[in-house]
Amino acid sequence: MSGFEAFGGAASNPSGDVVRRLALSGHPGVRLSTVVLPVAFAASGGRLRAAVDEFRPDVVIALGLAEGRSGITPERVAINLDDARIPDNDGAQPIDERIELHGPDGRFTGLPVKAIVDALQKADLPASVSLSAGSYVCNHVFYVLQALAEQSERQGRPLRSGFIHVPASPELAAGHPGMPSLSLDELERGIRIVIDTVVATPVDARLPGGAIH
Amino acid sequence: MSGFEAFGGAASNPSGDVVRRLALSGHPGVRLSTVVLPVAFAASGGRLRAAVDEFRPDVVIALGLAEGRSGITPERVAINLDDARIPDNDGAQPIDERIELHGPDGRFTGLPVKAIVDALQKADLPASVSLSAGSYVCNHVFYVLQALAEQSERQGRPLRSGFIHVPASPELAAGHPGMPSLSLDELERGIRIVIDTVVATPVDARLPGGAIH
Amino acid sequence: MSGFEAFGGAASNPSGDVVRRLALSGHPGVRLSTVVLPVAFAASGGRLRAAVDEFRPDVVIALGLAEGRSGITPERVAINLDDARIPDNDGAQPIDERIELHGPDGRFTGLPVKAIVDALQKADLPASVSLSAGSYVCNHVFYVLQALAEQSERQGRPLRSGFIHVPASPELAAGHPGMPSLSLDELERGIRIVIDTVVATPVDARLPGGAIH
Amino acid sequence: MSGFEAFGGAASNPSGDVVRRLALSGHPGVRLSTVVLPVAFAASGGRLRAAVDEFRPDVVIALGLAEGRSGITPERVAINLDDARIPDNDGAQPIDERIELHGPDGRFTGLPVKAIVDALQKADLPASVSLSAGSYVCNHVFYVLQALAEQSERQGRPLRSGFIHVPASPELAAGHPGMPSLSLDELERGIRIVIDTVVATPVDARLPGGAIH
Repeated sequence: MSGFEAFGGAASNPSGDVVRRLALSGHPGVRLSTVVLPVAFAASGGRLRAAVDEFRPDVVIALGLAEGRSGITPERVAINLDDARIPDNDGAQPIDERIELHGPDGRFTGLPVKAIVDALQKADLPASVSLSAGSYVCNHVFYVLQALAEQSERQGRPLRSGFIHVPASPELAAGHPGMPSLSLDELERGIRIVIDTVVATPVDARLPGGAIH
Repeated sequence: MSGFEAFGGAASNPSGDVVRRLALSGHPGVRLSTVVLPVAFAASGGRLRAAVDEFRPDVVIALGLAEGRSGITPERVAINLDDARIPDNDGAQPIDERIELHGPDGRFTGLPVKAIVDALQKADLPASVSLSAGSYVCNHVFYVLQALAEQSERQGRPLRSGFIHVPASPELAAGHPGMPSLSLDELERGIRIVIDTVVATPVDARLPGGAIH
Repeated sequence: MSGFEAFGGAASNPSGDVVRRLALSGHPGVRLSTVVLPVAFAASGGRLRAAVDEFRPDVVIALGLAEGRSGITPERVAINLDDARIPDNDGAQPIDERIELHGPDGRFTGLPVKAIVDALQKADLPASVSLSAGSYVCNHVFYVLQALAEQSERQGRPLRSGFIHVPASPELAAGHPGMPSLSLDELERGIRIVIDTVVATPVDARLPGGAIH
Repeated sequence: MSGFEAFGGAASNPSGDVVRRLALSGHPGVRLSTVVLPVAFAASGGRLRAAVDEFRPDVVIALGLAEGRSGITPERVAINLDDARIPDNDGAQPIDERIELHGPDGRFTGLPVKAIVDALQKADLPASVSLSAGSYVCNHVFYVLQALAEQSERQGRPLRSGFIHVPASPELAAGHPGMPSLSLDELERGIRIVIDTVVATPVDARLPGGAIH
């Protein structure tokens, strides 16, 4: 499981915070390895690849922060595009660049997004499927991750992977009236449900949850 | 403390649900009486008045549901206006009517709204001050409540009172992607903090928290 | 008619821009006097009062910018509260202060807000009634204006007045993806409809348009 | 150029309305052919394909309605997914189905989205790049269109094409306070700018405009 460091001037990043929590306490029934990635286009992909090479996971769940979203939102598709609105933590701001020059335009997630949303909602946690992970470092990591999964599959080692955006923490949202947030305790509860659901759901549920636009 | 029944076709109302929870378990250091009000212009005010007459409280905290809001939002001001977008649970839909023909246009809350928001945020819960309680039954009850407080004050029995809107539960938000929500456990935790803060704060803190518009 | 100068680091303010346009071109059937107010708690009220003393208007329509709103929104009620989230253009940032120490908590508008919204919508312009003008300089000017109207009424010179928030211009919204906006041409068209509607509507229409919360 | 019929119980669809307007009046410097598509997964693709076969266009700009968006939003990528939240106009509600069983997960637009947004903003119209066209009939038509463009390219007839979502009309937004909208006149002005920009911009401008998430 991966999360991110803080970025954009924020003091913390709940995606990294929850991963550090899980690293300390573990999760019943799974062997959990974690990495907290830099919010940097150039460095993040390599760090993720190194962690996958080291840990040889069956499943990779990458987490990232989406300030403004109100729920835990599994992403459906990564796109082959770096298009940064603000510089990353290394000062890079790529605009309209392909991540892989000859890679496919999009790569779908390997996670059971509908089952995850259903399980979270049944546990009284806000959740919905997202159809865009943006064009910043989160999407970059997601796209690189799905490329790793394709490669791993071709090499006979199936790797299920995907990306999940999480809301701001109340601490981050405090200065922005109206910004939705989720406490770190609730987020941890949610991510544990995500882990259990991924393990228990080899084929996604067929549930409504699309977006009109 | 008051909450509301379900309305507008919804299956539940977290404002009433949390009040029922608190009624069962009580709250340390206070004697808690509760009432769940009908979502009806004509009936709600009388029910609230009867409860105040019966319980003779020092403090009244009225809760209501605000679907679409992301945090616990203490209301600053009630206005002398019934203007219903949808019929209430009794089928009434007043439009542009004054609640009290000769009452003041507005009545401020008696609760320490800034201290409440500060305490909630420090407890990792989303919160902000709200400057409008709408023009539906919530505002109606709030306006009637503040009239009761004025009357009580004139009679030498100071009554501190106000209204707090709460987010949708995840259950209510499930069918509305992007609608913020708060689990009932977190809401209960928040309302207990509200109670403690009101008891501990005779004069509100002077903290930023206004709205540009 | 009044508008405001730019504030908060923005390059322009459509409320002032549209007032300057109308000052140049006038409006059929009315004698139009205009003032562009400073975004400053201390200075704005005096400037408005001076303009009212000078022009002796029958109607005052004050305009202000509400970034993030999608339509032209006549305000229903001013509240007796200065509570600034950011400093004004003179560096003042009052927190939780009454505008008039012994003034009423709220003062309703004198404009036919429902008829205005109806006329704008029929002219294919986005509009809705707003129940909060915030607690910044816009609300301050609105509250002072309604005090002037009360005073004028008592002196036998009825003054109909109120406040209307307008969306960002596309220029202001350009750097904020998703921020609604209205072009200056459309805004001017809308404000002309507002003027005509106020003149033609001594008593507001009874139309739905309230808010649940 | 294509637009859509009304759907989801609405009385009209500005994407179809503006296309009908342009069909009547034409546009300087281009030969314009138009089609208004049914909001139906099964029927829309065939109708679009038939129109492309008949008109043999150099450029196809498909328009669709995105209620809730505040500006004209060129879409960046179509995804290989039908996932309907509500039934289409023929009563079909596909869930989690690929549009082309063996098609790529995503297909990028062929339109200069950054140049379009820049030209619209310079003309005082709200606009931003969108990274998701949803998973309903709009995305379906977009994906089918980009497949046609690939096929046409392979056959030596380059076809530049893409999809643009447009806001609700004020008429559609009237019953939904806070819903952004754009008048049909402004929309027509915007779409004419889109046409001119596409014709004048063989290679997209390199301008910021990505999304964090």
